[in-house]
Amino acid sequence: MNNLSIVFIGAGNLGSNLAKALFRRGGNIVQVYSRTEQSAASLAGAVNASYTTSLSEVVSDADLYIVSLKDGPFMQLLPQIVAGKRRDALFVHTAGSVPMNAWKGYVENYGVLYPLQTFSKQREVDFSELTIFLEASSSENLDLLKSLASRLSEHIRFADSEQRRRLHLAAVFACNFSNHMYTLASELVQRSGLPFEVLLPLIDETARKVHVLHPLQSQTGPAVRFDTNVIQAHLDMLKDTPDMQQIYELISKNIHQYHK
Amino acid sequence: MNNLSIVFIGAGNLGSNLAKALFRRGGNIVQVYSRTEQSAASLAGAVNASYTTSLSEVVSDADLYIVSLKDGPFMQLLPQIVAGKRRDALFVHTAGSVPMNAWKGYVENYGVLYPLQTFSKQREVDFSELTIFLEASSSENLDLLKSLASRLSEHIRFADSEQRRRLHLAAVFACNFSNHMYTLASELVQRSGLPFEVLLPLIDETARKVHVLHPLQSQTGPAVRFDTNVIQAHLDMLKDTPDMQQIYELISKNIHQYHK
Repeated sequence: MNNLSIVFIGAGNLGSNLAKALFRRGGNIVQVYSRTEQSAASLAGAVNASYTTSLSEVVSDADLYIVSLKDGPFMQLLPQIVAGKRRDALFVHTAGSVPMNAWKGYVENYGVLYPLQTFSKQREVDFSELTIFLEASSSENLDLLKSLASRLSEHIRFADSEQRRRLHLAAVFACNFSNHMYTLASELVQRSGLPFEVLLPLIDETARKVHVLHPLQSQTGPAVRFDTNVIQAHLDMLKDTPDMQQIYELISKNIHQYHK
Repeated sequence: MNNLSIVFIGAGNLGSNLAKALFRRGGNIVQVYSRTEQSAASLAGAVNASYTTSLSEVVSDADLYIVSLKDGPFMQLLPQIVAGKRRDALFVHTAGSVPMNAWKGYVENYGVLYPLQTFSKQREVDFSELTIFLEASSSENLDLLKSLASRLSEHIRFADSEQRRRLHLAAVFACNFSNHMYTLASELVQRSGLPFEVLLPLIDETARKVHVLHPLQSQTGPAVRFDTNVIQAHLDMLKDTPDMQQIYELISKNIHQYHK
């Protein structure tokens, strides 16, 4: 891996975290592309690489191109990304929802490297804890991705495109939606004149608990015990915020469905 | 506190955890009441107390009665709970949504001891990490509850009934609803043929992240970046589970509202 020259296409949350983690493990990142100069320059500085904001200036002789773009732009820019590159270069994307075969017909060697995690630029993620899901167009390419990924984490699994898109959907519920529940909770706790931080031990225990109890077993609260007094009182308290009221009602009903 | 004789009315998730935590810190629990013999006997055994399944057999001369019942039964059983007890006994409940004044007119000394946490019988909670919210009918009673609660946690706050009911509502979102998102995620990940455990690092990081970034800042995923390709693909994947599809759509829209 130390010898592979790597280009990052995209310097968003995932791309930035992955590039920095690879750099810290000796990865040789030669160039970063981002449409946004600030993102490109900032990541390039952190991983000791050059940068460009023009796809036509991406170096053509790298060994590995790692593409972390939103799904729409990725599909749109794909012909430009592959144009003029070495025939034996390996191309991977990092998207949960894009099938590996998006590369098919464009390049000979391709694959997917999907680290299952929530990434923000403001926070560096410990890759050693997470699982990296791999898929590749040949067993040689898979071996290459395995050796790359194994520098970052001991937890490496194979997932085909169908598994990966289901996994991505599950991740939206487990991460994005639970985080939005924290957002709504923070708004509610502010209304009580208390700081968001009073909820942290509760948030932590809720997450810790599902390491030892399945979430169906660990569920508590008014919806699972069908405490209609409390549920109705809560719906009344939310009458000025109908969106939140609708979310409360829908999820409570669904919890009850799962537990009755 | 070591001298206070304590009766627990209710041996549910919260009552059981609280009684065990007090017992471990030298609390003198003399009796446990539960409608269910198994619950009463099991908790009584764990805290070296006697038990009863009849409210009329609850001892009348305890110093402190701690009531942990569902809101409905609590209001209904209140007259029986207080009947014949010592005039100077202190009565507290542990419910987020029941105002302290539910006791008013029934007894002279009363209050609320509300540990903000998710409790299951299968898992003992570390009280030292959580915040205990107190309210009492007099400063003397508040001092007594403070000295009791301070055996369990250094994090003790005052919350009046209005703050507490808002806090409880916030907790439903932060804990019960985020846990239900884990449940839905577990169902989805099973459909991909992968174990629920692959989601744990993601769940952990989502919870850890809000210690350093406000949940509004830590949000990631298709809804916040308004990636309509992915959102539509996910809705299509959920067409056979319309409840889950509705939850996906409603929360995604709400995330977008908060971040646009």
